[in-house]
This record gives sequence, structure tokens and C-alpha cells, in this order.
Amino acid sequence: MDVITREILFNRVRSWVLEAGALIRKKMHDPLTIDTKSNPKDLVTEMDREVEFFFASKIKAYYPEHLLLSEEGYGDTLSDVHGTVWVLDPIDGTMNFVHQKQNFAISLGIYYEGIGEIGLIYDVMRNNLYSAMRNNGAYKNDRQLKKLNKDLQLNHSIICLNHHWLAKNSLVDERVMQQLIKDVRGTRTYGSAALEFAYVAEGAADAYITMRLEPWDIAAGRIIVREVGAMITNIYGEEVGMLERSSILTCNPTIHKTLIKDYICKAKK
Amino acid sequence: MDVITREILFNRVRSWVLEAGALIRKKMHDPLTIDTKSNPKDLVTEMDREVEFFFASKIKAYYPEHLLLSEEGYGDTLSDVHGTVWVLDPIDGTMNFVHQKQNFAISLGIYYEGIGEIGLIYDVMRNNLYSAMRNNGAYKNDRQLKKLNKDLQLNHSIICLNHHWLAKNSLVDERVMQQLIKDVRGTRTYGSAALEFAYVAEGAADAYITMRLEPWDIAAGRIIVREVGAMITNIYGEEVGMLERSSILTCNPTIHKTLIKDYICKAKK
Repeated sequence: MDVITREILFNRVRSWVLEAGALIRKKMHDPLTIDTKSNPKDLVTEMDREVEFFFASKIKAYYPEHLLLSEEGYGDTLSDVHGTVWVLDPIDGTMNFVHQKQNFAISLGIYYEGIGEIGLIYDVMRNNLYSAMRNNGAYKNDRQLKKLNKDLQLNHSIICLNHHWLAKNSLVDERVMQQLIKDVRGTRTYGSAALEFAYVAEGAADAYITMRLEPWDIAAGRIIVREVGAMITNIYGEEVGMLERSSILTCNPTIHKTLIKDYICKAKK
Repeated sequence: MDVITREILFNRVRSWVLEAGALIRKKMHDPLTIDTKSNPKDLVTEMDREVEFFFASKIKAYYPEHLLLSEEGYGDTLSDVHGTVWVLDPIDGTMNFVHQKQNFAISLGIYYEGIGEIGLIYDVMRNNLYSAMRNNGAYKNDRQLKKLNKDLQLNHSIICLNHHWLAKNSLVDERVMQQLIKDVRGTRTYGSAALEFAYVAEGAADAYITMRLEPWDIAAGRIIVREVGAMITNIYGEEVGMLERSSILTCNPTIHKTLIKDYICKAKK
């Protein structure tokens, strides 16, 4: 994607994300219908659908040749990564949206021929917009985020991960993960993958590890964290494709190798 | 403590808490000396000491007959609960303060003859002040917090707890705690006991469970959560004294019994 096209697109998309956030804030205290999807912990509301519909309509009107990959059903079916693809999670952290009325985000990545060009994560209630264009730095609102520091040790690190991976599960040996949480300085769980990417980008967390995410959970975050020098791979250190459901390890580059070699590889099932 | 005395005290203390918060924000980006205390995860900075000194000096000047119980060394040695006692954590969530520059709080409870009269938890960077006077309701800034809803089920609950209790430890059977996190809807870890009390008070979390806290971690929180109808006991359902180091279970009253009977009592070591 050429730089000028991208910048025009970025500015337009940015304004749409802010507009969708304002819509959510306006309707925040309206009565809400909550459904469950694959399991009782997997929630969806009409707000998720409404925000997705908002973007689907905008894309159709302004960029009819673009495609949309998204969570709630208004998107396209993609068989390959060709063209310009918008990858959207209309509300990342729906459980927080429902229970806390905060700590959720709109997450939107735009890819061209499989390469992430634009990433936007909007913490709607705190009005913080994390954004990046490839090779152009990452921003929190108007402030450019610093490159991550290069002399971090694992025992001084704060790691985001879900409690689930410390109990018996089908994907990873919980005993190795239990050792990991003893060896780091602190652990946090915020309940929004997009925000956990954003916290890694701004250095509030040093790593975010999870065993399964959908493409729309990852799409914006990885474009943003790359711009501050964070690693973003699956938990075995391999690159993750745009259309893949995958495990994710995003972290300060200094601890990437030890996290994989000394912990996650030993926890492989 | 009579109601008029208490209200005058509340207003003065409230202004001091806000003043201390402004001091922290002003110095937030100054270089910081970080020491460790009992272990490498137990951090303290000169800011913790400075904020405590700020309150110790105010108390000495305005209320020389009051006592201060606090974390960093400027307080008094208490052998009983008589008189008016201020129980202070100058920065609750020091690790967040150091690593994140947010998600920490000033926590201050004021007790008279062992009874909690005034509680203040100040989320400094978000400028959110949670406060309560006994039998007078709890507030987030100027908005009174609602009583907690009475028809909550455990499998619809969000629980705050540290990952540590899901790995082998000396205080609780980790296997029972692992079952608990599977049975609830979601789990969160924020790294500040005071803020986790505040989230229970505002309904953003339905429980906060931890196996060991100091009196200054608990002092403000319990006064605030009581005002919205939350339970606040140790993990066996017993009342916790003002001077005690204790486990803590604070939660929506509807799930208190099942948390203790079906989980924590079975995890007792």
C-alpha cells in the first residue's frame, strides 16, 4: 500500500473508530441483551453486532473493493490474504463491557496483501487510542510510544496471562506455567487481548501470553507492538499468519527467548 | 465518633488525600529509587515514604492525639485499638506504580475504638476517589454507589485473585482454587488490593480473594465495601480485626457462602 493512500485511509478510519466509541459511550447504560456463543463465558451483545455493522456499512460505502474479516457475522468469507482486508473485533473484552462497563476496546487492523499496515486499539471508556502505521511508530493518542528498554530480566518482568493456563487444560502443561508465574515479578489479567497488547506496547506489561486467539483478537495489536520493538510470535517463536487462529506470545525482545526455551517449550502438550 | 466530628474530619482528610495524589502526579516522572523489602517482588520507593511522611506530619500537627498505623516506618506502634487510629497504605500497588505509572492507590481508613468510620481509596492517575463513612453510603467521586445486586450466581461471577494461589503454596490447596477459576465466569488480577476492594464496591468484580494482607491493605476497603452490602471476612467467614494480618474474602453476599463452603474450606491447609 502506498504511503499516501495509507495515510488518507488511516485518518478516515481513525475518525470512524472514535465515532463508534462515542456511539458505545452514548448507549452504555441502555438495557442490554446478552447472549452466549461457544460456551457460557463467551458473551456477545447487540452492541458488538451494532459496532460491527457500523464498520461493515462504512466499508461497503467507501471501499467496496475492501474485505472485512470479523467476529459477529457481517464480514466476508476469506480464502486468502489478497487485497485490502479489515480485521475487526468490534468489542474486544465483551465480558468487561457487560460486567464492568469499562476495560474493553475496539480493535481494528488493516492488511494489504497479508501485511499489517494500520492498527488501532481504542480503549473506549478511557478515551485512549493506541495506533500505528507500519514503520511509522506507535502512538497513544498524540504521544509517540518509546521503544521498549533492552535490559529487562525475566525476574523483573510483569506478565499478562489468563488464570486458565495454570489449571489443567488441553493446550499447555499447567505445572510449567505455574513455575513461570513464580519466577517473574508479577502477573496481571485484564480480560481484553487488545488492551493487553496495548499494555505491552506502552511498557505497562512486559509480556502477554495466551494459548488461543482468533485473527481479530491479534490483528491490530501486532501492528502496534512491532513499532516499539516487541516480539510477536506464536508461543513457539513462529510467525502467525493473518488468517490464523493461534497461540500468541508478545513481549519485550529481551525475554522472548527465555520465555520460549525455558518455559513454554517445556509446557508443550 | 460523633457524626459532626466525623464529617469535619472526613472533609479535611479527603482534601489531604487529593493533595497527596496531586503530589504524586507532579513527581511521577522524576527518577525513582526502588528498594525491595521482604522479597524481590515486595517493592518500596521514596514516593511511598514521602506520602506516608506527608500524612504523619499532618496528623502530628492537626491531631496529635491520633495514632498512625502504616507500612513504611513513620507510624506508631499499636498494642490495642483504643482511640482514633489512621491506617494508611501510602501507595497500594507499588509494583504498578513503578512499572505502569498507574493502577495504584492511596488507601486510608480511620478507626475509632476499633470501628471503621472513614475509608478513602484514591486511584491517583485516574483521579477516582472511592470513599465512605460508616452507615452513610459509599461514593465514587460524587456519585453514590448502588447496593450490590442480590441475584448473582457463581458461574456468572468475576473473581479477582492472584495467580500465586493457583500454584503450589503454603497457605491453600491450589487444586481447589484451580477448580474455582473454572467454575466462575471470569478472573482478573490488577495488582492493588485497595483497587480490588474498590472494584468489588462498584460491582466491576464480584469477589476479591487473597490469602494474606496487612492491616493497611484492608483498612479503607472494608469500610467502603460494607456500605454497598458486600461481605468482608477472612476466607473462613470470620470477622477480621483492625490490627490483624489476615486472609480476605470480600464479595457479593449472594456468593459468600458457596465460595467458603464449596471451595475455600476444602482448600484449607
